[in-house]
Amino acid sequence: MNQETGTDNVIYVGNKPPMNYVLAAITQLNSGSNEVAIKARGRAISRAVDVAEIVRRRFMPDIKLKDIKIATEEVTNEEGHKINVSSIEIYLSK
Amino acid sequence: MNQETGTDNVIYVGNKPPMNYVLAAITQLNSGSNEVAIKARGRAISRAVDVAEIVRRRFMPDIKLKDIKIATEEVTNEEGHKINVSSIEIYLSK
Repeated sequence: MNQETGTDNVIYVGNKPPMNYVLAAITQLNSGSNEVAIKARGRAISRAVDVAEIVRRRFMPDIKLKDIKIATEEVTNEEGHKINVSSIEIYLSK
Repeated sequence: MNQETGTDNVIYVGNKPPMNYVLAAITQLNSGSNEVAIKARGRAISRAVDVAEIVRRRFMPDIKLKDIKIATEEVTNEEGHKINVSSIEIYLSK
């Protein structure tokens, strides 16, 4: 179990179509998980919000938006420089 | 005063460089406002998170992240069709 979030059920949102992550989140919640965390960094943050909204509005209206966290993470880019990247964590729960 | 948010101090984040909105937020908070709302829709959501993080981490470490809301808004696109767009509201307060 992830010590920081208290949940194993993390969906990392990247550059694929939003519906891929929507289906992953719904699958988690329908397979006995009480909570799913949708996480993203940088430009994928907008897509993470889309994913959470599509799950809630279109597919699982009973799901609650439990918490939203934003943060700054230090990552090393292709040139080896450390840069700051914003991140988001959206927690959906039954 | 905006009835919905209870604050006049709204920064709408669009396609300009993040620092434009960072400066707008800092100016609001330094001119007597106790709170500023940073709002964005669609792809600008990532930039809104950047703006909030830059204000908090780099310029005003005493500012608190009061609340984050996400929602879906129905807008009419260029072809006249109604489409759903995700939105975010980030509330920073003294």
